[in-house]
Amino acid sequence: MTQMLPSAFLAAVKDLLGPKGWSEAPETLLAASTPWRGTYQGNTPLIVRPASTTEAAALVKLCGQYGVAMTPQGGNTGLIDGGTPHGEVCVSMTRMNALRETDTFNNSLTIEAGATLVAAQQAAEAAGRLFPLSLGSEGTATIGGLISTNAGGVAVLRYGMMRDLILGLEVVLPSGEVWDGLSGLRKNNTGYDLKHLFAGAEGTLGLITAATLKLFPQVSSATAWVICASADDVVKLLSLVRGRVGDSVTSFEIIPANAVDMVVADIPTARDPMPSNAPWRVLMEVSQTDGAYARTLLESALAAAMEEGLVQDAAIATSEAQAKAFWHIRETIPLSKRAYGAALNQDISVPVSRIPVFIEACNAAVRTVLPTADFVIFGHVGDGNLHYSVVEAQGAAAPQLKDHEGAITRVIYDTVMAHGGSISAEHGVGRLKRDELARLRPPAATQAMRAIKRALDPQGIMNPGRVVSV
Amino acid sequence: MTQMLPSAFLAAVKDLLGPKGWSEAPETLLAASTPWRGTYQGNTPLIVRPASTTEAAALVKLCGQYGVAMTPQGGNTGLIDGGTPHGEVCVSMTRMNALRETDTFNNSLTIEAGATLVAAQQAAEAAGRLFPLSLGSEGTATIGGLISTNAGGVAVLRYGMMRDLILGLEVVLPSGEVWDGLSGLRKNNTGYDLKHLFAGAEGTLGLITAATLKLFPQVSSATAWVICASADDVVKLLSLVRGRVGDSVTSFEIIPANAVDMVVADIPTARDPMPSNAPWRVLMEVSQTDGAYARTLLESALAAAMEEGLVQDAAIATSEAQAKAFWHIRETIPLSKRAYGAALNQDISVPVSRIPVFIEACNAAVRTVLPTADFVIFGHVGDGNLHYSVVEAQGAAAPQLKDHEGAITRVIYDTVMAHGGSISAEHGVGRLKRDELARLRPPAATQAMRAIKRALDPQGIMNPGRVVSV
Repeated sequence: MTQMLPSAFLAAVKDLLGPKGWSEAPETLLAASTPWRGTYQGNTPLIVRPASTTEAAALVKLCGQYGVAMTPQGGNTGLIDGGTPHGEVCVSMTRMNALRETDTFNNSLTIEAGATLVAAQQAAEAAGRLFPLSLGSEGTATIGGLISTNAGGVAVLRYGMMRDLILGLEVVLPSGEVWDGLSGLRKNNTGYDLKHLFAGAEGTLGLITAATLKLFPQVSSATAWVICASADDVVKLLSLVRGRVGDSVTSFEIIPANAVDMVVADIPTARDPMPSNAPWRVLMEVSQTDGAYARTLLESALAAAMEEGLVQDAAIATSEAQAKAFWHIRETIPLSKRAYGAALNQDISVPVSRIPVFIEACNAAVRTVLPTADFVIFGHVGDGNLHYSVVEAQGAAAPQLKDHEGAITRVIYDTVMAHGGSISAEHGVGRLKRDELARLRPPAATQAMRAIKRALDPQGIMNPGRVVSV
Repeated sequence: MTQMLPSAFLAAVKDLLGPKGWSEAPETLLAASTPWRGTYQGNTPLIVRPASTTEAAALVKLCGQYGVAMTPQGGNTGLIDGGTPHGEVCVSMTRMNALRETDTFNNSLTIEAGATLVAAQQAAEAAGRLFPLSLGSEGTATIGGLISTNAGGVAVLRYGMMRDLILGLEVVLPSGEVWDGLSGLRKNNTGYDLKHLFAGAEGTLGLITAATLKLFPQVSSATAWVICASADDVVKLLSLVRGRVGDSVTSFEIIPANAVDMVVADIPTARDPMPSNAPWRVLMEVSQTDGAYARTLLESALAAAMEEGLVQDAAIATSEAQAKAFWHIRETIPLSKRAYGAALNQDISVPVSRIPVFIEACNAAVRTVLPTADFVIFGHVGDGNLHYSVVEAQGAAAPQLKDHEGAITRVIYDTVMAHGGSISAEHGVGRLKRDELARLRPPAATQAMRAIKRALDPQGIMNPGRVVSV
């Protein structure tokens, strides 16, 4: 339900932010309330766009004064209904997108929350460095949103998630005070680590306005497309490759044969690099400062894996164009899956060692509910993170997926928990998984989270109802 | 002041833990109350040693029931008066030292809080993996203590600090409930990241009983001893090396010429690998799965650095024994520094880029207080972390260091803050730096920490008075 905004609050906000800093235009409000995937619909009485930390702090203070709830929003590319307002004032951070500082010798840069991931990657590159986070929506997703959701992507295996890539944060607290925790320090043991609390908090504990990010040396990659006969072989392959080339394995993605077929059928520019009847593909990247050595490592690891029977066939990209063609298949799976028809999508993780038994157990469990179910299972196997989708079997008589959505979701979650896994690996909680997680999380953890939320946001004005209900 | 323990509490604790689980023997209490460096003296009425998570939980519940404060203790190797009881019941975790599980394909192991770092390293090695945390006290320091203080050491540049190396935790909360957050998951976005809150909390938010640690591929290292003419050259050398060999630079330690002289004079087994009048040495390690390639990388990077005039001379260790001899010098600096005489020791960090100007500014500032001051400045320059010690100039007429301790500490802290640094890089806060940090930290951060402490430990029974006063 949309909040009724006190007119004194409205007047004060408009005065504070000026004409560029707010909008009540219905089409703008609608756009801010509609996520890109469009699977839920929010609403908001007002969108505000602070242009500076000072403005953001004054805005939050006004919200506190008038008891007005707000939802911070970056690129609105989230998938768990965390950044879409449902009646709250929408605080769009996109005007705060300045690159504040690059410190090459410290391998760090400070950038505002509304800058896109691509902007951060480009700023790093301009300094002769690498900012390694990489994911599909990088042209739209913002630094603040990526931190707030602790985003993952295709380089987590080597570089970690977004929380691992931040050195410092600037945050407007629910009180309207600014915590200047921007810092280029790699070591700073001076109390509870607040940045790790705001990272992944989905805007429920404060409004992130800027961040200092870690930069890395630039690397060159060698990319392989690998055919495997079983998920068990895929996990063993990962272990063999890491044993031989160390953590210069920067990406290790699993792709099922049916996803390749789907993409090739749906995307005119895609072709199967190596047709095969085997059920699995691995897209693997090995990176070193010396690209030729990366290729040598990759070749020798694959040769050893073939000798051990873990790999049926493999192709190493001979050009950047070919590597991009491999990645194009991986990256268009989500898109072409939608063209394929209805799907129930889950973003889950289990320990890497359990991936083979999990897939078998989960598919069997889903088929007890819907015997005609088919599966598209792909993702970051190196992190134990699978995007697990249930789809209608091709040619199924009548679409039944939606009818069984609740029961299917339940057996998936139960199977994930039985394998020591997580029902939200990288997408987050938001409103979408809040109640399910209150059921599945250890009660002691939920209680601690509620206590923290109440302690830092006693009025409950920061993105209420996301992560935990209080 | 020592707490008077209610006799009903004492009886219940003794009954709970059995004869092996507690002691009131004066010599045992004294040992537990005396840190290894002996710069402060604590006291305790009772030492308890739970043997299981169940016992630990019941113990904490009893403490809550009777309002008894406790201080968790691991190896008692901390440096900031965090784990030494000052009247509290001392909860020694050393009986809980089991290796619970190794998961090779998941690159993780689960081990109890009282196990030593060496035990964890050895368990990893037995699985053909690496647990990379490494520091001087690793034979005594425990996993629980290392997590609680977010320990650093000599491999942070490549692998991060202790908090970066944990996948999950098991913690007894102040309520006596157990949060089973043990997990082998690399991705788990299901709410606020509690493990990052307990890591570095120095036992003030809960009692860590076990942890799941991240393992890495094993590597071989090439080690160099390098002579540099200035701190500026050292920082430029780091940048050049990382640009050429990527983050296969696993250690990058700075050592001043006077520390080498000190060690050589004091430690019979130490000799200067490469005598020189230049002021700085760098001890550098490059690691790859293929040790020969690591050596090739190191050689070519050093050749390039010599060409650019950043390095005056360098020796690459030709055997493991020689590499160990290099490291022996680095590792015995703290020991021989004490033999050298009184010293004021600080564990500080600044952005790596500012190290040269910081050293110059800080030395000058200290000399405004004590013109005869001399300095021993060494440490993890790759992380911006210096162990900065002020010593009496050799042959100084009368020792004056102690008389000026307060004023010297103040100018050091002010200089650190002026350079965007931290007055506790890796050692922590404890009681030692609590009040100074309440002065130097942004007030908004201290307020947030207090709110968190009160929310999670409303009775104030978990290691009170460390990190923040409430």
